[in-house]
Amino acid sequence: MTRQGEAAGSSVTSKVLALLEAFTPDAADLSLSELARRSGVSLATAHRRAAELVEWGALERDAAGRYRIGLRLWEVASLAPRGLGLRDAAMPFLEDLYEVTHENVQLAVREGLEVVFLERLAGRGAVPVWTRVGGRFALHATGVGLVLLAHAPAAVQEEVLGAPLHGYTPKTVCDPARLRRILADVRKHGYSVSDGQVTVDALSVGAPVFAADGTVTAAVSLVVRADSAQPGALAPLVMAAARGICRSLAGGPSRVFPAGPR
Amino acid sequence: MTRQGEAAGSSVTSKVLALLEAFTPDAADLSLSELARRSGVSLATAHRRAAELVEWGALERDAAGRYRIGLRLWEVASLAPRGLGLRDAAMPFLEDLYEVTHENVQLAVREGLEVVFLERLAGRGAVPVWTRVGGRFALHATGVGLVLLAHAPAAVQEEVLGAPLHGYTPKTVCDPARLRRILADVRKHGYSVSDGQVTVDALSVGAPVFAADGTVTAAVSLVVRADSAQPGALAPLVMAAARGICRSLAGGPSRVFPAGPR
Repeated sequence: MTRQGEAAGSSVTSKVLALLEAFTPDAADLSLSELARRSGVSLATAHRRAAELVEWGALERDAAGRYRIGLRLWEVASLAPRGLGLRDAAMPFLEDLYEVTHENVQLAVREGLEVVFLERLAGRGAVPVWTRVGGRFALHATGVGLVLLAHAPAAVQEEVLGAPLHGYTPKTVCDPARLRRILADVRKHGYSVSDGQVTVDALSVGAPVFAADGTVTAAVSLVVRADSAQPGALAPLVMAAARGICRSLAGGPSRVFPAGPR
Repeated sequence: MTRQGEAAGSSVTSKVLALLEAFTPDAADLSLSELARRSGVSLATAHRRAAELVEWGALERDAAGRYRIGLRLWEVASLAPRGLGLRDAAMPFLEDLYEVTHENVQLAVREGLEVVFLERLAGRGAVPVWTRVGGRFALHATGVGLVLLAHAPAAVQEEVLGAPLHGYTPKTVCDPARLRRILADVRKHGYSVSDGQVTVDALSVGAPVFAADGTVTAAVSLVVRADSAQPGALAPLVMAAARGICRSLAGGPSRVFPAGPR
């Protein structure tokens, strides 16, 4: 490819990715002009590239002609080791945790300076929470976030602690020095407690899932009503589930059945 | 863009998609040369495009430098309405079904001539099944597949029935005329039974999730051990769950909490 052709190729790749990135939880279906505007490309380019993405199945069009993310992209993305792979290994333990508590059970990983939620099980009577599978949240407030931040590389911790910390409720810890002491406690005790720090009525207890090299791969949490919560009683439950997931990841697939024909 | 530039642009898009498509359940992490070979592009092209995909987060590299699908792609793909959207609406009903049975509970949609599994909950003691979330299977054998085939457009049914039907076990129905009668029964009774047709020891009961326009959006199934199964007793359970999901889809989000801050 010529140098000019190469530059054009990069530009096409970035436009294709910009089209995918135009979709968000608040804008999960888009008209062609919305798609063009949100991805910063011309209407003609959006039309041409979107048609290719629809043909492959990365996008789909609904009855009204609006674009949305396609099932085929979800299928490919389901192969992400840090997405469904981790989630599959964790699921039996999350199910156990859910079944003995009927509360919110969450599995999350750190991506940059944020939490990404991989799974969430919730009873109908469980306390309402803000999280969505595939959604993001700040590291300094939630139970899983505190665990992931406590075990993040120093550079990540400094970046989070050095920036203004958003207060979701009056109880959110926004003072870097106090947060630093809390993170040390999380490492020392092996679990986190977020009491009314995201929503006033919810308390979350989180625990780390360690990889073989001692780094933290993911975090598990249980979110319950703040008024009735006994963090000391919940912590062993969450920690046991997290340890089960560690063991399952170390030993390969936790399930007895084969991977399937395709 | 010139006509030549436009052709090059299409070719770049198709190469980017080919790189993503190179990943499969059996090959979820790939070296650069494997990636190039499987996607049918040159080593130089694979290197260049993969670097762009890594930068955006659509691909990730592990410690050994091998490529895999990235978490960022999974995040975007989680917005697919027929993926996690449907799954979220269905989850409370799947959890109920799981909790009262402790068997395999599955949610699937039809994509072309195949079933795609969106969710699967399974007790540790449940009968082993072949399915994987994000994986595909033939329409003519499983409980969910029979439901989705029974309610598919006539052209889809003809294409499936007109092609050779793979026999997974001696009990798989491979005769088109007999399968046609079975599909009529599925429509008439409102549920399907797949008895030993995928694996000899498993029996599956499936039911349709209808959209407001009368088409079938998805199917739910319960998979149990064939020897102890009473399909007549399981069918009302599965049908009730499927109806709950229909209602939940019709009425918008089934959960009481808001969509979250992002």
